[in-house]
Formats: sequence, structure tokens, C-alpha cells
Amino acid sequence: MSEQLLSSRNLAFELYEVLDAEALTQRPRFAEHSRETFDAALTTARTIAEKYFAPHNRKGDENEPRYVDGSAELIPEVKPAVDAFLEAGFLNANRDFEVGGMQLPSLVSQACFAHFQAANAGTTAYPFLTMGAANLIESFASVEQQRLFLQPMIEGRYFGTMALTEPHAGSSLADIRTRAEPASDGTYRLKGNKIFISGGDHELSENIVHMVLAKLPDAPPGVKGISLFIVPKYLVNADGSLGPRNDVLLAGLFHKMGWRGTTSTALNFGDNGQCVGYLVGQPHQGLACMFQMMNEARIGVGMGAVMLGYAGYLYSLDYARQRPQGRLPDNKDPHSPAVPIIEHSDVKRMLLAQKAYVEGAFDLGLYAARLFDDTHTVADAEARRQALELLDLLTPIVKSWPSAFCLKANELAIQILGGHGYTREYPVEQYYRDNRLNPIHEGTEGIQSLDLLGRKLAQNNGAGLKQLIRLIAGTCERASHHPNLDPLRQPLEHLVNRLQSVTLTLLGDLAAGKVAGALANSALYLKVFGHCVIGWRWLEQAIHAEVGLLKGSDRDFYLGKLQAARYFLTWEVPGCHNDLALLEARDDTCLAMQEGWF
Amino acid sequence: MSEQLLSSRNLAFELYEVLDAEALTQRPRFAEHSRETFDAALTTARTIAEKYFAPHNRKGDENEPRYVDGSAELIPEVKPAVDAFLEAGFLNANRDFEVGGMQLPSLVSQACFAHFQAANAGTTAYPFLTMGAANLIESFASVEQQRLFLQPMIEGRYFGTMALTEPHAGSSLADIRTRAEPASDGTYRLKGNKIFISGGDHELSENIVHMVLAKLPDAPPGVKGISLFIVPKYLVNADGSLGPRNDVLLAGLFHKMGWRGTTSTALNFGDNGQCVGYLVGQPHQGLACMFQMMNEARIGVGMGAVMLGYAGYLYSLDYARQRPQGRLPDNKDPHSPAVPIIEHSDVKRMLLAQKAYVEGAFDLGLYAARLFDDTHTVADAEARRQALELLDLLTPIVKSWPSAFCLKANELAIQILGGHGYTREYPVEQYYRDNRLNPIHEGTEGIQSLDLLGRKLAQNNGAGLKQLIRLIAGTCERASHHPNLDPLRQPLEHLVNRLQSVTLTLLGDLAAGKVAGALANSALYLKVFGHCVIGWRWLEQAIHAEVGLLKGSDRDFYLGKLQAARYFLTWEVPGCHNDLALLEARDDTCLAMQEGWF
Repeated sequence: MSEQLLSSRNLAFELYEVLDAEALTQRPRFAEHSRETFDAALTTARTIAEKYFAPHNRKGDENEPRYVDGSAELIPEVKPAVDAFLEAGFLNANRDFEVGGMQLPSLVSQACFAHFQAANAGTTAYPFLTMGAANLIESFASVEQQRLFLQPMIEGRYFGTMALTEPHAGSSLADIRTRAEPASDGTYRLKGNKIFISGGDHELSENIVHMVLAKLPDAPPGVKGISLFIVPKYLVNADGSLGPRNDVLLAGLFHKMGWRGTTSTALNFGDNGQCVGYLVGQPHQGLACMFQMMNEARIGVGMGAVMLGYAGYLYSLDYARQRPQGRLPDNKDPHSPAVPIIEHSDVKRMLLAQKAYVEGAFDLGLYAARLFDDTHTVADAEARRQALELLDLLTPIVKSWPSAFCLKANELAIQILGGHGYTREYPVEQYYRDNRLNPIHEGTEGIQSLDLLGRKLAQNNGAGLKQLIRLIAGTCERASHHPNLDPLRQPLEHLVNRLQSVTLTLLGDLAAGKVAGALANSALYLKVFGHCVIGWRWLEQAIHAEVGLLKGSDRDFYLGKLQAARYFLTWEVPGCHNDLALLEARDDTCLAMQEGWF
Repeated sequence: MSEQLLSSRNLAFELYEVLDAEALTQRPRFAEHSRETFDAALTTARTIAEKYFAPHNRKGDENEPRYVDGSAELIPEVKPAVDAFLEAGFLNANRDFEVGGMQLPSLVSQACFAHFQAANAGTTAYPFLTMGAANLIESFASVEQQRLFLQPMIEGRYFGTMALTEPHAGSSLADIRTRAEPASDGTYRLKGNKIFISGGDHELSENIVHMVLAKLPDAPPGVKGISLFIVPKYLVNADGSLGPRNDVLLAGLFHKMGWRGTTSTALNFGDNGQCVGYLVGQPHQGLACMFQMMNEARIGVGMGAVMLGYAGYLYSLDYARQRPQGRLPDNKDPHSPAVPIIEHSDVKRMLLAQKAYVEGAFDLGLYAARLFDDTHTVADAEARRQALELLDLLTPIVKSWPSAFCLKANELAIQILGGHGYTREYPVEQYYRDNRLNPIHEGTEGIQSLDLLGRKLAQNNGAGLKQLIRLIAGTCERASHHPNLDPLRQPLEHLVNRLQSVTLTLLGDLAAGKVAGALANSALYLKVFGHCVIGWRWLEQAIHAEVGLLKGSDRDFYLGKLQAARYFLTWEVPGCHNDLALLEARDDTCLAMQEGWF
């Protein structure tokens, strides 16, 4: 049977050839692990994803959560799937052995998670949101808060959400209006409305722990006045038993184009003035807490986009191999049999583009996960700092690039299936609808572009960028020892040189206070920067493919890698030069457009 | 109230400034028309589209046709809408006055139809399919067939379909297996299965006339052995009364991602050996008949893609004007009020791109409709022939370019609305789902690219291409009298020169029998050719905007046109040069990819 979720050969290539996962077992934290334990975890993930998650992916789409008597009702298949995930320990994949965790590197846990993301984005979101909320509590909450809320989350009894967005403010968190008034007992009373809260209600767990952003009465204006609160659906008594229902009301459900298995809710906090919340960390530091967790969350979203692209790629590849239709253009004999459509050059193009997008982004996502491991498990403190610097810089790309280009991959998968691809009798249209969420949530493309150009690049005097450029130069240097990689290396070198110069120009403008002009075309910058990063990752993959070819086995696999690298570096990378020209010219076509002219 | 379907100011610009619709009234066929009669028809179309079509667009999506007792059951709102369309005479918009038609130019009727396409793609398909089938019968069927089938179609009593696609063959019509055996009475007995037949069953009309492609027993193999048949759902007696049900079975319905209001059916012809069909035209000439009607059908599909893009553009524009969120990047005062998001440069970019795509493609669609008028109403026979030559060449672009780029426009409309855009509480996600069909049906993008590069370009020694290049040169010459159009004109000239040379190279390869290599990257060629054509149309619009500006009124409208032209010609057109470089180099990245390497 062909693989449906991801290619295990490609995963092994990433883990053991490109990213050297085995080297991680040299670090004290991962010393009890080995390639065998990594592979065992991956096999378990694949098995559970195939057995419990994939089979109800379509059913979850067709039967989105319903609002029944103030609660959200899910299809019955979700709970056994989530339970299997919990029982296998994946919720605590990265936690210490001593608290019952698997103590896996992020590189390996992300690879495990990828199977669930490919199998069923909707169901996967519930445990994923819980992991995010649990990590927040673990990092910033008091010992008592951890006892009451984190421990049952680790045990899989409580689930979690992130409650940030408000109806009037959208991405502009500075403008949230949810208020938290201190009560005499040291807790707070929250009042406000949140929307688009994924997993905001369900019956999968005993309790739901909402991580809510709100403002204290003495809050300074803007983003510096946001605090973080734990707001449970049910209050929790001091002995850990459940108390009464908190004043959190499910005001309604949103009905989405895709990703329908995950309920998206409107929540009202404190309609009756009785919504109890617990301040996490220091007052007014809520956004800082959120930001510290953002790298991980955004790797997760990026990988989710990759995996929807990956599932679509594999499905359309299999279809193209099975489906006979038409003849090659130089064959005019109508008596000759039809060929499998994979033989048509334009179908090859659509498959090759998908391969380039999803395997390029898959590599980047895992590379970022490995960087995340480095931020806390490399022995040398300076190396940890550098890893964090680079990860900070890359995060907008890790999140946004797959959201844009693996969605494009899904569009191509539909096209390969033709009319069939447009029907709900085949899975690719759902991948496309599901994936359309990724450029929106967890920071839109616009937000990511401003984060990159307006903030990340200049941090610490551009040290992250300098590090990235050194790494790319190193890859190019190693590639130069393989003469047949010259046509792949040169477009990347050309791009990175020009991008570097454009970057200095824009950072100069920003430093000189020309903010509006410098940020006006941030979307172009994000795209070019992303292509540069993915181009670099493809050149890395190509070097490892060259190495693999010398070993003599798996020749087809490595030749495919080289061809996809060639596609990306010669078809896609040079296409960025007009974007660079516009950036160089400080083009003001968009900025100068007036509202009245539309 | 803001306009929802299309901008009437832009429509007037197209009809009366760019395309000079009034000049058509000089032609004998349209002599009784005037700007007033044109505008009256347009107002009627808009009124009916707003009153009967738009209100149930979402309902049709949420309640797709159901299979009930062997029939397709539609929501009740469809019939009154279609009836209003029929009663207003739009089904016969182009037919002679003497048969009850409106005798409108296609330029004006397409502009009328555009309102329905923007309001409700699903419901609009039923009368549109009927028009297509009626035109086929009118052009190729016998007098008796016209009496029995065309006349009730003109009266709106019978509807029509096009039944081409078969399960195993898809786009490869050469391989259809439906057979037509001659019966002793001069009729035929058909046997075969068709899929994706839009409007293949419903209760909107007394009868449904299927135009079916099938093969006679003595058919030569391939596309030269295809014949065209009338196969009615109910047999028709000689006096025009309905006879018994024909042996056409509704085998099932397809469930699509979008465009759900139009039922997509699987039809079985002749399961009981009793399916009566009537040969239309000469044996084995069916595909030729279809091809002669294809220009019109493909203009219709292209315009449908445009109008979904247009509706999404207008909705997101209105939203961006109303929605306050965030502050401009050079404003750091959190006390200042939020600005409407249309003031953010990246939102302007997404609106400007939409405007460039939809208004560029709208212009091209109407230009093609005017060319279609020229093919049969210009006095000079040579001019008629030339108009057909150009229209033949442009048809793949008219169909495919809006299908690709107005879908992209819909993607941007969702992004502007953010999380809201992703919900079914707002209309833009439906436009996106509906529009995703357009790159697939009526010839996929791949089919269009082969039609353009492998067939249309070389026709009549490249005369169509030469004509197009002369027209573009003429536009550039006129543009050169407006110095501030220089930055818009130059990228187009650069593109068209290089495209011309690439075309000669590829045609040379084709002539030399290097077919596989020449056609390998036809998708790139289609995109670049399309950008060249749309760039030309934007330069035309820019010239008319310059002229308009001199008149002094409507300044904002014309400045918006110039800015959109600038966007397309400086942001999008120069982006084609890497595609051209790949075509010039006869790049074989895709062609050389092997199935085993994936």
C-alpha cells in the first residue's frame, strides 16, 4: 500500500541524513534515546494516526461540531483518537521522564506529530492546543497553579485553549478590551468576549483551561498592558476536585470553510460578573509570555500546513500513477493505449512543484525543531543563545511559507485529479479547504511579514541575519565541491547577495525613521526571504542526495531529491528578482494607492 | 449602498470608453439599438440578479441538489430566478428580433450575463447550459430537429446540457466509449456512461435536451470518429407533445467543493437498450461542431471566473473600508484610534492585486465578446475572418487566465477578512470554492496550454499571433504619446519582444518534430502569454484613463485605473522573465523527471 501521511523514506532522510538526529543522543537530556527509540515513537505515531485519526477525517468535515444546549457536540470518533494519542504519551513527548514524559527531542516529537497533522487536522488540534496551554503554565505559572491545572493537563484530564482574539480587534492585540478586576481573595474577575477560540468547548476532557489575555484596571495602554490569566471552564477546589461551572459562556460556534473538525467558538467571560481567573506571571507581562511560546506554536502551525500539503501530494502522486488518460504529444496513434497521467510533462510539473514545496517546507520545519532543541540542550551557552537568535529570525518563515506554498501544493493536487479532485468523494479538496486557515491563524501573513522586517531582522544588531547568511554561505561552499550542483547553487548565491543588500537598505530606512515606506512592501520581502531560506534548505538536501548517490543504493530517491531541488532553485528562486527590484526601488505603488481610487 | 455584483462605473468605462459599444449600433444588425437600449438591458439584468439570484446564493451552497427517487431535487428558489431570467428574454439575448430575441451584441449580452454570474454561479449555470445547447442545435441541427428541440428551448420550456466526459477518459475525448447504433427509423440507440454532466437532471423545465458525444459503429479511431447527438430526457412526438421517458438514467450526483447549486450528474444512456438519439450534423463531425461553439462557451467560463473574482473584490473592498483595526506603522500612540484596514499598505496591495486581476480579466472578456460580434457583424469579410483568427488565438487565455488569477483574487479577499473570511458567515469563502472549478471544467489549464501552444499559434501560418502583436504595438504607440505611461509601456514592450522570439523558437521546434520538448513547459507559456495579453489590455485601459483625466471629471476613478495598470505592469508583468528564460533554454526539469524518482 502506498503511504498516505508522509514518506517514511523521506522522513529517515531528514532525521538521519540531513539533520543527524542521532547526534542528539550525545546530549545528556537525550542520552537514554537512540535511533531505535526514535523510530519506535515514530512507528507508534504512524500507527495511531492511521488507525484512529485518518479514518474520520472526512466524517469530521461533514459533521462539524454542533451547538447543543450551550455546549459543543463532536462526533464520537474524536475522543477515542485523542485518548489513543494521550495513552501513547504524545501529549508529554518532550517532558521529563520523571513526570511521565518521553523526553524526546523536538525534532523527533515534531516528526511524530506530523503524522497526526497529515491524518486529521481537525481532531489533532485538541491535544495540540492543550500542549500549548500546558507549556505556558509550565513556564510561567506558580507552583500552586501548576499543581491545580498543569498536572491534570499532563494526565490528559484537562484540555487547554488560547483565548486572544476579540471581535473588534482581530490581530491588533493592543486593543483588546477584556478586563480583569482583582478580587479580595487574590483571584480576578474577568469580563469580555473572545472569538475564534479553537477547542473552546467540547466534552473530551473533565475541564478546559483557557489561557486568556486581559487587561488589569491599572494597565498601561497598548501591548504593554496585557496580562495572562488561567480561566477554567469548571472551578477547581484546593484538593483538585472539580468545583462549580465558572462564568464562561459558549456564545456560539463559527462555521468554517474547512478545518471543521475543530470547533471554533465565541466565548463570553463574565456575563454574570462571576468569571474567576488566576493571574499567570507578572501583571502586564502577558504578551511577553505568549511571545516566548510563539516559536513552538508557530513551528506547529507551519508543520500543520506542510502536512496537509504532504497528504495532498502523496494522494495526487498515487492517483497520477494509477490513472491512464491520453497519450504523449508525439504519439498520434489513437489505437495506442492511454498512458498513466504521470507521464504527461505538465502533470510531472504539478507533482514536482508539490514535492518541492512540501519536502522543502518539511525540511525547514524539522530544522527549526532541531534549532529549538539546541536552544536548551546544547552544552555551550553561547551556542544556545545563537540557536535562539536564528530560530527567532526563522519563525515567521517557518509559519508563513508553508501556509502559502503548501496551500498552493493542495491547489495543484486538486488540478491533477481534475473533476474528481473538485468533488468531496476524494480527499484533496478537504486538504485545500483545511489548509486555507493556516495563512490566517497564529499571525496572518501580514503580521508575519511585519514581524520579520520590522522586528526580527534588526534584533541584536542583525546578528540572526548574519548567522543565517554565514550558514547559507557554508552550504554554498560545501555545494561547490559537487560540480553538478553549480546550476543549483548559483541562483541561490545570486538571490542571497541581492537580498542582503536590499535588507541593509530597508533596515537603514527603518533606522532613519522612514517606517511607512520601509514596511510598505513587507509581503514581497517575506516571500523573497522565504524563498531564500527554502532554497538554502533545498541545496542542503541536494548535497545530502549527492552523498547518498555515492553510496549506490536508493538511487531513485536521491535523483528525485536532486530534481526537486533543481525545480525549486531554477524555476522558483530566480522568479524573486522582480520582487527584489521593487524592494530596491522602494516602490510605492501600493502605499500610494488612495482609498477613494478603488 | 455599495455595489455587490460589479462596478457600474467600470462597466460604463469598458462599454463606452474602452470598447466603444455605441459604434456597434452603426451595424445593420444592431441598428435599432442605442446606448439607451443597452443600458436598459443592463439595468434589467442587474435588477433580476440582485432580486432573484443573489439572495439564495448561500442557500444553494448549503443545500446542494439531492438525489430523490431517481431525480435531482433543487431548492425552490432556483426556479423563480431562472423564470425571471427567461421572462426578461436573456436566454435569447443574441437571437433575432423576429424569433423573439433581443438581438443584442455579445458585448452587451455578456455584460448582462456578468451580473448573474456574480450573483449566483450555481443557479446561473442552468440557463447558460441551455444557451450553449440551443446554439449547437441552431448551428448544426436539421430544420425538423430545430422545430422539435430548439423552439421549445427558445421558449424556455426545454433546458439543455453538454454530455462529453466519460469516467475512464476525462479530458481525452478521443477515447470516449459511448456508442450510437443506427436504428431502422433513422434514429440511433445510444449506450454509455457520462459523468460531471452539469444540469443533467432537475425539474426546472418540461424536458432536458442532452447534447451527447458518441461513436458510430463505423467510426474511425480517435477524435475524428466522434459524432454529436440530441438525446432528450423525454421523447418528443411529431406534434411537439412530450412522449415517454427516454432511456436516460440519473445514476448519481457528484458532491462538489463549491458551485454546489448546479447539480453535477452521472448519466447512464441506454442501460435498457432503449436510449433514442438523433444525429446532429454529419457523422464523425461531432467534435468539430463542439469546437465551433467553444469560443463562446469559453468566454462564458472565463467571464464566470472573472465575476466570482469581482464579487469577492467588491466585498473585501467594502469590508476594508468599514473595518477599523490597528494603526499605521509610524504611529506608536496606543491611545490613537484604530484606522480602517484599507489604510494599511499590505491591505492596499491585496485590494490592488484583486482590482488588477478582475478588472483586467473583465476587460479581456468583454473585448473577446466584441471580437465575437465582429466575426459575424463586421461588413468586410476579411475583417470578419481576422476577428475570428484573433478570437481563436485569445480563447485559451480568455478561459484560463481568469480561472487562475481571479481565483487568486478570491484567495486575497479571504485574507483581507481574516478569520471572518474563513467562515461561512461571510460570502468570500464560497466565491473561492465556487471559482476553484473554473481551472478544471471546459478544458483544464493543461488542455488550454496545449491548445494555445500546440495548435492555435501555428494556425494559418501564425496570422493570429501576428495580428495580436500588431495590435499590441499599436497600443504601445498610442501610449507613447502619454509620457507618464512610459513606465507602464516599457515592461510590456520588453515582454512582448521576448515572448515573440520564444514563440518562434518553440514553433520551430514543433515544425521540426521536437514535439515533446516544445510542449513540455506549455503551462509556463500559457501564463506568460496571458500576462502579455492582460498587460496589453491594462495599457489600453490606462490610455483611456489618461483621456478621461483630461476631461476633468471622475478623477478618482481614472487615477485608480492608472494605479491598477501600474500594479499589473510593474509588479506582475516583469515577473514573467524567469519563465521566459526557462522557455528559451528549453528547460527539461519537468520533462526529465521520472516516475520512479517521486
